[in-house]
Amino acid sequence: MTDGDGIVLGTNQYGKAENRVVRVYRDTPRHRIRDLNVSTALRGDFAAAHTDGDQRDILPTDTQKNTVFAYAKEVGVSSPEEYAVALATRFLVAAPSATGAQVSVQEYVWDRVEVDGQPGGHDHSFVRRGTETRTCVVTVQGRGADQRVWVVSGLQDLLVLKTTGSEFRGYLRDGYTTLEEVDDRVMATSLTARWRWSGTDGVDLDAAYASVRQQCLAAYATTYSRALQETLYAMGRAVLGTHPQIAEIRFSAPNKHHVLCDLGPFGLTNDGEVFHAADRPYGLIEATVTREDAGDPGEAWTAVPAFA
Amino acid sequence: MTDGDGIVLGTNQYGKAENRVVRVYRDTPRHRIRDLNVSTALRGDFAAAHTDGDQRDILPTDTQKNTVFAYAKEVGVSSPEEYAVALATRFLVAAPSATGAQVSVQEYVWDRVEVDGQPGGHDHSFVRRGTETRTCVVTVQGRGADQRVWVVSGLQDLLVLKTTGSEFRGYLRDGYTTLEEVDDRVMATSLTARWRWSGTDGVDLDAAYASVRQQCLAAYATTYSRALQETLYAMGRAVLGTHPQIAEIRFSAPNKHHVLCDLGPFGLTNDGEVFHAADRPYGLIEATVTREDAGDPGEAWTAVPAFA
Amino acid sequence: MTDGDGIVLGTNQYGKAENRVVRVYRDTPRHRIRDLNVSTALRGDFAAAHTDGDQRDILPTDTQKNTVFAYAKEVGVSSPEEYAVALATRFLVAAPSATGAQVSVQEYVWDRVEVDGQPGGHDHSFVRRGTETRTCVVTVQGRGADQRVWVVSGLQDLLVLKTTGSEFRGYLRDGYTTLEEVDDRVMATSLTARWRWSGTDGVDLDAAYASVRQQCLAAYATTYSRALQETLYAMGRAVLGTHPQIAEIRFSAPNKHHVLCDLGPFGLTNDGEVFHAADRPYGLIEATVTREDAGDPGEAWTAVPAFA
Amino acid sequence: MTDGDGIVLGTNQYGKAENRVVRVYRDTPRHRIRDLNVSTALRGDFAAAHTDGDQRDILPTDTQKNTVFAYAKEVGVSSPEEYAVALATRFLVAAPSATGAQVSVQEYVWDRVEVDGQPGGHDHSFVRRGTETRTCVVTVQGRGADQRVWVVSGLQDLLVLKTTGSEFRGYLRDGYTTLEEVDDRVMATSLTARWRWSGTDGVDLDAAYASVRQQCLAAYATTYSRALQETLYAMGRAVLGTHPQIAEIRFSAPNKHHVLCDLGPFGLTNDGEVFHAADRPYGLIEATVTREDAGDPGEAWTAVPAFA
Repeated sequence: MTDGDGIVLGTNQYGKAENRVVRVYRDTPRHRIRDLNVSTALRGDFAAAHTDGDQRDILPTDTQKNTVFAYAKEVGVSSPEEYAVALATRFLVAAPSATGAQVSVQEYVWDRVEVDGQPGGHDHSFVRRGTETRTCVVTVQGRGADQRVWVVSGLQDLLVLKTTGSEFRGYLRDGYTTLEEVDDRVMATSLTARWRWSGTDGVDLDAAYASVRQQCLAAYATTYSRALQETLYAMGRAVLGTHPQIAEIRFSAPNKHHVLCDLGPFGLTNDGEVFHAADRPYGLIEATVTREDAGDPGEAWTAVPAFA
Repeated sequence: MTDGDGIVLGTNQYGKAENRVVRVYRDTPRHRIRDLNVSTALRGDFAAAHTDGDQRDILPTDTQKNTVFAYAKEVGVSSPEEYAVALATRFLVAAPSATGAQVSVQEYVWDRVEVDGQPGGHDHSFVRRGTETRTCVVTVQGRGADQRVWVVSGLQDLLVLKTTGSEFRGYLRDGYTTLEEVDDRVMATSLTARWRWSGTDGVDLDAAYASVRQQCLAAYATTYSRALQETLYAMGRAVLGTHPQIAEIRFSAPNKHHVLCDLGPFGLTNDGEVFHAADRPYGLIEATVTREDAGDPGEAWTAVPAFA
Repeated sequence: MTDGDGIVLGTNQYGKAENRVVRVYRDTPRHRIRDLNVSTALRGDFAAAHTDGDQRDILPTDTQKNTVFAYAKEVGVSSPEEYAVALATRFLVAAPSATGAQVSVQEYVWDRVEVDGQPGGHDHSFVRRGTETRTCVVTVQGRGADQRVWVVSGLQDLLVLKTTGSEFRGYLRDGYTTLEEVDDRVMATSLTARWRWSGTDGVDLDAAYASVRQQCLAAYATTYSRALQETLYAMGRAVLGTHPQIAEIRFSAPNKHHVLCDLGPFGLTNDGEVFHAADRPYGLIEATVTREDAGDPGEAWTAVPAFA
Repeated sequence: MTDGDGIVLGTNQYGKAENRVVRVYRDTPRHRIRDLNVSTALRGDFAAAHTDGDQRDILPTDTQKNTVFAYAKEVGVSSPEEYAVALATRFLVAAPSATGAQVSVQEYVWDRVEVDGQPGGHDHSFVRRGTETRTCVVTVQGRGADQRVWVVSGLQDLLVLKTTGSEFRGYLRDGYTTLEEVDDRVMATSLTARWRWSGTDGVDLDAAYASVRQQCLAAYATTYSRALQETLYAMGRAVLGTHPQIAEIRFSAPNKHHVLCDLGPFGLTNDGEVFHAADRPYGLIEATVTREDAGDPGEAWTAVPAFA
C-alpha cells in the first residue's frame, strides 16, 4: 500500500449513492408503495484498486445498483431497515474483500388521495405527505458467527413552529453580547433525529417510526422551552422512555430565527404578531440523549453525519 | 430616454423579492399563523433612474419591504390575495410615477400538532403540511375610477403519483422513435396551477383554495389517463365546472418518469412492481383550460412564468 | 374542443425538459466539449390529446429526447443557437400538427486544466469555469416560405460585486421609509441577461457571447452607479452600441444586499470593511434596453421568463 | 444529568451556522475581499441548559455571531484558517464551560474584472471564480499549556471532466452484474477534499491552497485512470509529496456518470462523441491518503462529514 516514501492509503469506502427505487405492491387492488432513495458503501481491503488500478476485488457500483433494484423485488421492502439489512448482508457475500457494508435509505412518505365515497382514500392514487423524510443507516460488519448488525433509524427535516411557550434568558454575557432577553418568542426548527436500536427483534419498525415522530412532536408542543436544548432533551427522554429498545437518539436542530419586526417607526405596536423569518445565520443545536448503559455503538455511527 | 443614437430604455420593473413574513394571530389562546413569502414590483415611468441615476421617483425596495411587514399588522392577512391587493394598491398611492404594481405571495401551510387530549390539535404548535405551496399574483393598474385589479391564485409543487390507471399508446412515430407503448404505467407529477378570477366578490378565498386543490386531486385520481394532457384537461374542467368565478386555469406538469426496471437478467419478473424514479430529462406538459367567454386577461399574466 | 358548456382548451405546449447532452469533438487529440442542458416544446393543434386522450398527432417527448441526442452527432453543436435552430426546425417537420417549436439550451462552459509544459492547457481534461451559464431560446414558427426563426441568446447567474463606486440617495420618501442614504456601498448582483438578435447572419455566436459578457462586466466595473438601474442601462447601451444585430437586451438583476455591520457596540469602527451578505429579501431590478426601431419581437419571448 | 431512570444527556454542541461575512480591505485604492461563510460550535459541559433550561453557562449563538463579524475587523482575515483559529480560541476564553470550539469556514473566491487598459484587472470590481469553494475546519481544545489546535483545510465542488484516458475493466462479477467493460470513457467528478496539517508554522495558507488545488488538477489530468480510486490515490500522493506539513488528505468524489448514447437505432455511430450526463444514482468514491507516521488526528475530524 506504500511506495516506500511513507505515503499510504488510509480508510476508504465506495458505493452507489441515491438509487431512486419505487416499489409498488399490487397484489390487491389497493396498492401500496415504498418510495426510497438508497445509498450503498463497501469497506475493506481495496488497496489494489487505488495503488495499481486493479479492479479484481471491486464489486462495481453498477452491480450494487442492480442489487438494490433486484432486492426490492426479491426481498421486498417490509421496512426500509429490513431491506437495508438484506442488502448490506448480500454485499458482504458478493464482495469477499469487503469487511463491512453500509446501506442508507431515505423514504418519502405518501398519503392516499381522498376521494368522495372512498373511505380510507383512493386505491392507487397518492399525494406526498409533509416535508419530512424517514431515514435509516444500517451497517453490517464481518461474516458468520462474528457478523454484527447495527440499525440506526431517523427522520429529517420535520418542520415545526410554536408561536409561544418559549423564552431565552439568563445567559452568559461578554463584550460581544447585544442580544436582549425575550420571555416570549416564536421557536421553529427543521428537526433531524437519528436513533440507534440496541436490537430490533420483535419491533414493528413502521409503527416505531410513527411513534417516535409523534413523541417528538408532542414533546415539542407541550414543553415550555427555556432553550432549544431543553426541548431536544425533553424529546429524547420521551422517545427513550417509551421505546426500551432504543439505546440513544441524536438530534440536530437549526434554530430558525423569527425576528420580531420593529413597527414603531410606522406608529404600530407589534405584540408578537409580525416576524421576519430569517435564512442565515441560524443557531444549530445538536444533542444526544442516551441510556447510561447504552453500550459501545461500534460501527453504528461510522461515516454518519454528526449529530444527526 | 434616448441619447440620440436610437438606443432607449424599454419595459422595466423593480421591487423587493422574497420578504419572509410570518403573521401570528394571538387574540385568543388558539393562535393562527400565516407564513408568507412576498414579492413586490412597480412599473411605470422610471426612466430617469436608468438614464440619469435620478432616484426622485423611486420608492426604494427597502420601503416596499417595510410596507409588506407593516401591512401584515395594519391590514392583516385575511387571505394572501386580499393582503396582496392592499399592498399593490398602497404602492400606487405611494409612488406617483408608478402606473402598475404587482404583488406575488407564496404561502406555506401549517397543521396543528396533534397532542393527546387536545381535540383539533395544539393551540400554538404547528407542523408543516405537505409539499405544496399556495400562491397568488395580484396586479393593480391605474388609479381612481380607471383602476383595475387582477387576481390569479395558484398552487405549486403538489406531488402526486398513481400506480395504475394510466397508459400511453397510439402516438405519432418518426425515424427517432424508440419508445414502446405501455398500457399500464406509473404516472407522477409535481403539479403547478394558476387560476385567474373574473372577480372575487363574495368568494371565500381560503375555502376556494382548498376546493380547487381537492378538485385537482380527485380528477387526478379518478381519471383514467391516456396522457398527462388528458388528466390536466380533466382537472381544469372539474375546477371551472365548480367555480363559476374562475375564468381560466393554467397547468404546468412535469412528467416525473418512473422507468420499469428490467429484472430479467436476474431471473426475476417485474409486473409493475419495481421502478427507477428518474430525475432528468422529464416531460413537461403545459395547458390552459378556459371559458370561451373568459374575456381579455389584461395585465393578469404579465411577468408571470408561463404556463403556471 | 368544448363539451358544450363553454369550457374549452386554451393555449398549450409540451416537450422534454432538461436533456443533459455532452458532445465531445475528438477528431484531433485536442478534444473539445459542449456541455448542454436542452429543453424542447411543441405548440399547435393538440386538442385531441387533451379532450379525447388521442395521441395520433403527438410526437412523444421521448422521441424529442432521442432527436436531441441524435442531432448532437448528426448536426453537431457549432453553437448552442445553431443546434437549437436545427432541432426546432426538425420538430416542425416531424410533427405536422405543430405550428411552432421552441428549444432552450443552457451551456456550462469548461476551461482546459493547466498542466506544466502544456501551453494552452491539457488536451482532454477540463475544469468548470465561473458560475455563469450561457443560454439561448430559439423559436421557429410556421413552414416553408412563411417560416420565421427568432433567436434569443443570454447568460445567467454571472456573479459580480464592487466594493465602492456605488451610492443610493435622493429617493422618494413616504411614511414607511426608514432607509438611510448611503454615498458608498457594496453593490453585488447575480446577473441574468437575454438579448434578441434581429438576425444572426454572419455572426460568430461564440465570439458574440464572449463579447457581450465582457461588455457587461466592463460597464459594471467602470460605471459609477447611483442605482442598479443606472448600471443595467449602461450595460445595455454598451452591448447594443457594439453589436448592431442585437435588437434588444433584457436584464434581471437581484440586488444582493451587503449590510454594513454595526461594530460600534464593540468599540470598533467600520468604514466599509465588514458586511453581512444577506439572503432574503433582495431587490429585484429588471429592465430592457432596446433600439427604437427594434421591430415586433413576434414569438421571440413567448413562454420565456420575464424579464430575463 | 439524569433523572434516575438511566436516561442521560450525551455529547452535544451548539453554535451559529452560516454567518455570511464579507471583509473588504480598502487601505489602498486596490481593494481586496474575503467572502466567507462561517459556522461556529462550542462543546463542553452544557448539561444544565438541557436538563433544567438554565442558560448561565451558555454563550448565546447571537454573541458568537457578533464575534464572527467583529473579529473580521479586529483580527482580520489574513487566511480563513488563521481567522478561524482566532475565533475558536476566543470562544474558549468567553465561555468557561466550553472545553472545545470548532469553527468552519467556506470561502468564495473572486477574480478581478478585466477592463481594457487596467493590467491585473479592476481595482474594486470582482467576478466570482469557478465553482469550487475553499474550506477549513479548525478545532481548539483545552486551555493554557494543554491547549491543542487542529487545522483542516479543504476544497469542495471542484468540477472536473476528462474525455479520454479512463477505463474500467477486470472487476469482480456476480449474478447481478450487467455492466460491460469499457476501455475509453468520460470520467467526471465534483471533487471534495480535506487535508489535515500536522502544523501550519511558516505555511502561507493562501499559497498552499492554490498549490493543493493545482496538484489535484494536474494529477487528475495526467493520470491514466483505471478507476476513480486510482485517480484519488494519485492526487493524494502528489499533494503529500509536495507538502511535508500535510499529514493526510481525504477525498470524496462522486462518479458523475456520462452514459454513451446508443444512436444505432438512428443509423448513427457514436465513437465517444455523444453522452447523457446522468444525475442519480452516482458512484461515490471516498479515500484517505496518509503518511504512515501521521499520528493521532485527535479532534481534527470530530463532527466533520466523512470522508471529506
